[in-house]
Amino acid sequence: MIHRVCNLYPKNFIGVCQLPQSPGVPPGNCIPELERCVNELGFVGCNLNPDPSGGYWKEPPLTDRWWYPLYEKMVELDVPAMVHVTATCNPAFHTTGSHYLNADTTAFMQFLTSDLFKDFPALKFVIPHGGGAVPFHWGRYRGMAQDMKRPPLKELLLNNVYFDTCVYHQPGIDLLAKVIPADNILFASEMVGAVKGIDPETGHYFDDTKRYVDGVSWLSAEDKRKIFEGNALKVYPRLSKQISRQAAAARA
Amino acid sequence: MIHRVCNLYPKNFIGVCQLPQSPGVPPGNCIPELERCVNELGFVGCNLNPDPSGGYWKEPPLTDRWWYPLYEKMVELDVPAMVHVTATCNPAFHTTGSHYLNADTTAFMQFLTSDLFKDFPALKFVIPHGGGAVPFHWGRYRGMAQDMKRPPLKELLLNNVYFDTCVYHQPGIDLLAKVIPADNILFASEMVGAVKGIDPETGHYFDDTKRYVDGVSWLSAEDKRKIFEGNALKVYPRLSKQISRQAAAARA
Repeated sequence: MIHRVCNLYPKNFIGVCQLPQSPGVPPGNCIPELERCVNELGFVGCNLNPDPSGGYWKEPPLTDRWWYPLYEKMVELDVPAMVHVTATCNPAFHTTGSHYLNADTTAFMQFLTSDLFKDFPALKFVIPHGGGAVPFHWGRYRGMAQDMKRPPLKELLLNNVYFDTCVYHQPGIDLLAKVIPADNILFASEMVGAVKGIDPETGHYFDDTKRYVDGVSWLSAEDKRKIFEGNALKVYPRLSKQISRQAAAARA
Repeated sequence: MIHRVCNLYPKNFIGVCQLPQSPGVPPGNCIPELERCVNELGFVGCNLNPDPSGGYWKEPPLTDRWWYPLYEKMVELDVPAMVHVTATCNPAFHTTGSHYLNADTTAFMQFLTSDLFKDFPALKFVIPHGGGAVPFHWGRYRGMAQDMKRPPLKELLLNNVYFDTCVYHQPGIDLLAKVIPADNILFASEMVGAVKGIDPETGHYFDDTKRYVDGVSWLSAEDKRKIFEGNALKVYPRLSKQISRQAAAARA
């Protein structure tokens, strides 16, 4: 289905794939599907669910060797993963209202406390929803890393971890752009996302995130170009190559 | 121990109690301890753990009738609860780095989707760590409430839910003060909290939160007075009464 949409609108869309994860099943089992999607369908990334149990968090942390076979394949294929859970089966959580954001925060802290990116310097993750609670608590994370004698966050994580802009109000995007370097922010919006309505305070759709990025007064034009375009080409190298191929074909 | 400290330093401290919660045990079992702490020891509030299973989230949501007997007693005694988890036993989470913040976000979303405060108009909760991910995603929550045909958040929750200031950098407190009404923010700091060190970017302790509140340029003196003092007296009526008694005793 995704492949079909991408073929119909090749200038608008490029695919990233879901992986056939199941609770308790080693993630290495997803490798054939990742290879198929990347090598046969031209997809440029994948989604990685840190909690296939759906709100019960039964899987080892993303930094456990349990996940390493999949990471080896991701690095070999040069594809990043978005870390994004699916629906929650646990009645304590609300899928889009708490489980999604909790998962973002959880994954970031797993990365902070591990040496995963020493083992995989080229591994890349995108954390959605602007990183869950992370930018709001950036001082907490800087301080905890320091207390744990970890390197500064920039050195420890920011060559490998990126944040998207799915935060649905101006003050949130302002904070994101203030504490997270522009090199680590990737533009994202949603089509049928968590919030569908119009913000009565602005008259615009809550999830029209481009307006918020445009509205950050202190970001330079170059920083905004990175957020809207440049960083995506850097984080998704196969997207960059595909665009070069399309351009060459158009010239020929 | 807490009672002893409060008696030694009555001008500095007043007690709130931990409750003897256990996974799967009805919260109503905590009522005798709550009564003892409030009526015999002069405590003015309690801590309520939404996840006594420690990271496995096996309890019904805080909005379930499972919790109602305790809420009835809280209202009768006129004491609020801070919603705060304890250590996590689940290796997916880090106690202070993700579990605490996730619990804050989880509780808020539970409140948003329920009619708990219709059943208990006088019930009050304080969510620590500035509300977890909530202020950063305030637009998301406003939008989700609207999509669900819930009342505006101010009407739905803000007579009952308060946020503390345990957010360890200026941009975080700036955001909190921008999106959450000053009437709903309670000053908090920590003594042996999640972060112990000095922020190299400022030269001050990360958890010296008074500086950040002082540093919000657009808050009026009256708003700051509410955050530092007025709101606590409002949310903890027994604190207010105790201070009046102390003042009367000093005059006598």
